[in-house]
Amino acid sequence: MDESHEQGSAAAGVRSVTRALQILSRLTDERTVITLRELQDETGLARTTLIRLVATLEDHGLLWAVGGNRYAPGPGLLRWARLASSSWELPLESRRALRALVETAQESASVWVRQGVRRVCVAQEESLHALRTVVRVGHDGPLWAGPTARVLIRDLPDDDLAKIAAETPDGAGRLPLMRQWQAEVREQGYAVSHGEREDALSVIAVPLVDKDGAVTAALTLAGPTGRFGDERLERYLSAIREAAEVISASGFMRLGASTPSPR
Amino acid sequence: MDESHEQGSAAAGVRSVTRALQILSRLTDERTVITLRELQDETGLARTTLIRLVATLEDHGLLWAVGGNRYAPGPGLLRWARLASSSWELPLESRRALRALVETAQESASVWVRQGVRRVCVAQEESLHALRTVVRVGHDGPLWAGPTARVLIRDLPDDDLAKIAAETPDGAGRLPLMRQWQAEVREQGYAVSHGEREDALSVIAVPLVDKDGAVTAALTLAGPTGRFGDERLERYLSAIREAAEVISASGFMRLGASTPSPR
Repeated sequence: MDESHEQGSAAAGVRSVTRALQILSRLTDERTVITLRELQDETGLARTTLIRLVATLEDHGLLWAVGGNRYAPGPGLLRWARLASSSWELPLESRRALRALVETAQESASVWVRQGVRRVCVAQEESLHALRTVVRVGHDGPLWAGPTARVLIRDLPDDDLAKIAAETPDGAGRLPLMRQWQAEVREQGYAVSHGEREDALSVIAVPLVDKDGAVTAALTLAGPTGRFGDERLERYLSAIREAAEVISASGFMRLGASTPSPR
Repeated sequence: MDESHEQGSAAAGVRSVTRALQILSRLTDERTVITLRELQDETGLARTTLIRLVATLEDHGLLWAVGGNRYAPGPGLLRWARLASSSWELPLESRRALRALVETAQESASVWVRQGVRRVCVAQEESLHALRTVVRVGHDGPLWAGPTARVLIRDLPDDDLAKIAAETPDGAGRLPLMRQWQAEVREQGYAVSHGEREDALSVIAVPLVDKDGAVTAALTLAGPTGRFGDERLERYLSAIREAAEVISASGFMRLGASTPSPR
């Protein structure tokens, strides 16, 4: 295939990668085996396209046929599992700061990064209360609602905001609200909500920043609204800011000893 | 894009998925951060193609830019990490059988499956000896050498053998040897080597089979040749066969409680 032809199929290539990942994303903790029929219904892909992509994913060990046109996560993912887990392990100082925050506040804390128009939890430490917020590493959520999202979008330019707004029922109509959130987080230095995304759930989030002060991630403390009254909120805020300072300085990734630090 | 055009770009699509995975595969335990330059040199991809694919992988959170055109495993991999680890967890009976094998033989044991022309470790249990074989889950190896490979290829038709042989310096010249291995494993029921792939390393492998007797995986016991003399070998063989029977019956994947068992 010559270079011009190659360029011509560039869009198709990117689309295929996106589709392949869309297929994998249909597997979840609750559904670890999926049928070809379910994949077809849920991705809306043409059957020939689907079969070709499933075969490619199977060849690379990302899907594993378990008989009867059913597929499970493939053993090839185990390699990435190890890589991702070791890369996203918190550096010691950051891990300690996260633990200290949970000990002080007695509520669950987590670290989130932006991934395109979504956010992903990359670290967490749980409260010891019986009633506690549980978020798993790798769990993802939207960027158009909640304090964690407000913190993560603080520095985003309008074109990124527009992509996120497009994910909401309001479309571009969401933009003014999101710009207002950006201004609030810039001014207050944090975001807080009580029962916004889930009844009785309170959340405080503060930015983790690089050395230029740009947002790289969000540090979040979450628990039952009954334990997030005004007086406690003040204490939590002071504790979460202290932890954020340490984690901003020490980082939230392990980049390998031989590697100079990012940025 | 109409359907015929779509079909025309099918090969390009599959190639793009393969290339995207090739890019990810350049990240290893030893090198968790990679530069664009290294990716270009090692994949041989045209720079425009590479940049496009890296951007796509970044959009989906599979790569994470750490500044200076350097990339680490992305947080999107964390989701798959969880999925893969839970799916490939050994069922309780199989886990017990693997532990019992290691206790009896006092050598490390592992379970391997075929993934295209390679093999991947999906479970392992380590010997407590200071000198012991260490293999990590997710680690991969070739199918053209070693007892584990000989067991895994036992039932493969010639066209699959040919693809594996093509990975060797001998090319198709390797086929007669591989066919001989198939015959040996069929006859003996196991494969053994002393110092074949690594000096002083001895390996015994036996098949794990489905209810029709077809090979689904290999169970492997490995340790220093000094501890694999004839008398011990007999004991190891009897222990590994016993474990293989239990694991063949109980399986080596967790497919979810709501899911009927495979095949």
